[in-house]
Amino acid sequence: MTRQELTNIIFTKKSVLCVGLDSELSKIPAHIRDNNSPEDAVFEFNKAIIDATLPFTVAYKPNLAFYEAMGLPGMSALYRTVAYIRSLNEPAFVIADAKRADIGNTSRLYATAFLGNGTTSPNFDAITVAPYMGIDSVSPFLGFEGKWAILLALTSNPGANDFQMIQNADGQLFEKVLQQSKTWGSEENLMYVVGATRAEMLKKVRSIVPNHFLLIPGVGTQGGDMNEVLKNGWNNSGGLLINASRSIIFASAGNDFALAAKAEAQKMQKEMEDFINQNI
Amino acid sequence: MTRQELTNIIFTKKSVLCVGLDSELSKIPAHIRDNNSPEDAVFEFNKAIIDATLPFTVAYKPNLAFYEAMGLPGMSALYRTVAYIRSLNEPAFVIADAKRADIGNTSRLYATAFLGNGTTSPNFDAITVAPYMGIDSVSPFLGFEGKWAILLALTSNPGANDFQMIQNADGQLFEKVLQQSKTWGSEENLMYVVGATRAEMLKKVRSIVPNHFLLIPGVGTQGGDMNEVLKNGWNNSGGLLINASRSIIFASAGNDFALAAKAEAQKMQKEMEDFINQNI
Repeated sequence: MTRQELTNIIFTKKSVLCVGLDSELSKIPAHIRDNNSPEDAVFEFNKAIIDATLPFTVAYKPNLAFYEAMGLPGMSALYRTVAYIRSLNEPAFVIADAKRADIGNTSRLYATAFLGNGTTSPNFDAITVAPYMGIDSVSPFLGFEGKWAILLALTSNPGANDFQMIQNADGQLFEKVLQQSKTWGSEENLMYVVGATRAEMLKKVRSIVPNHFLLIPGVGTQGGDMNEVLKNGWNNSGGLLINASRSIIFASAGNDFALAAKAEAQKMQKEMEDFINQNI
Repeated sequence: MTRQELTNIIFTKKSVLCVGLDSELSKIPAHIRDNNSPEDAVFEFNKAIIDATLPFTVAYKPNLAFYEAMGLPGMSALYRTVAYIRSLNEPAFVIADAKRADIGNTSRLYATAFLGNGTTSPNFDAITVAPYMGIDSVSPFLGFEGKWAILLALTSNPGANDFQMIQNADGQLFEKVLQQSKTWGSEENLMYVVGATRAEMLKKVRSIVPNHFLLIPGVGTQGGDMNEVLKNGWNNSGGLLINASRSIIFASAGNDFALAAKAEAQKMQKEMEDFINQNI
């Protein structure tokens, strides 16, 4: 999906919501687990969540860990989930939250695995990428028309303080990651992860990458403030994908889980719509 | 596998060789590809390489990228490969070169996926882990008896210069990663990746982590000097796993590929044996 197409969806839906499909088997409502194989349970759960939330949602982001932890049935459920989203009439931006990266020769294979044409693997629009190994580990993800690398800059977890915040002559490490990496790609193929638990840092980030899209995790269960994120992160193209995972997909553990997910997604979208209406 | 068990194998075999199973389908000898499904081709290739090299080898390290790029058949070939190694009478240390890490809640799932008991996923001894997200992204990999996280410190690729070498008040970033992370685990559950293309840096690394095991990629095709690595990295427990991938597994593309791999592994082991004999 191109930048322009993504922006069009954001302005049409008045939403920058990304739903994180962190579909951990043990947290899926019991009535689905009881009546299905593990693979089918995850797929049916995801399908119901997608059907319920799509009117309010721009992007879906399955985190690979939850699928890999189930072995092959989990990976199969993931592939079927991506294929299901692709089969719908309404387009959505689909992110592999995989945080991959390796030496260039090997990253090329990861890039094919996630951003390829879907013949042997799921057809994602984007993949999250870790920056530690530098340019040749990231560049292979930037060579796919209409597809994206989403580089970790500032994450939402406590451990972000260990290295990302280290001060050096040019600022903190995450600033250096932004400054250096923005020369590797363009606003058409490179986004950044910036944790919402650090909304006050968004101004710093926007001073370095004013035009890039930012993927913002940490709103909802992790405690980030959505309005702060919108105020400091929004730009002419939208420029934001705000992710919520558990607060939406596990809003209820009962038979009403899909309705509860819908209500939660709609509530977040409404807050986004109010902001967007005032800022276009 | 515990540290003591690993050391015992090293001293018995007089080898610190790790064979990287970067078994890219297109590089597997044609006669294997022609007579097998892609999944079987990769598995049969790996099996032949393992049978040929095991007498000279301490560890095997499949890189996940090569298997993920093939989709489910690739992952199935990987699982079968690990199960095959586990079925042999001769023990080997098996590393998932996956370079994973995520926020704590999610890393826990990756840890289960790779270091769990093998009921839903392969039963590895160790997994490579990326440090950028800090303590809570790494700690979940340290909670498995006799299993290991291998944290990226200094990698062997050109992009290692981008961030790992950044100078700050406490030294370079990779030194900070070593200093900080060594307090998160112990010499019994934490190793480090240190690229052999930077053998001169090994002294610096050893001054910070004298006793930890180091996984050294970059010998062979990438040009690292094995004797330099042995000289600067060896310690009382062995303390090294020196990896070679393509130079062994693709030593020949013909019918003699397994014999050629054996000869190459044996040559490397002989160099290691000469060093070990002089240093115990």
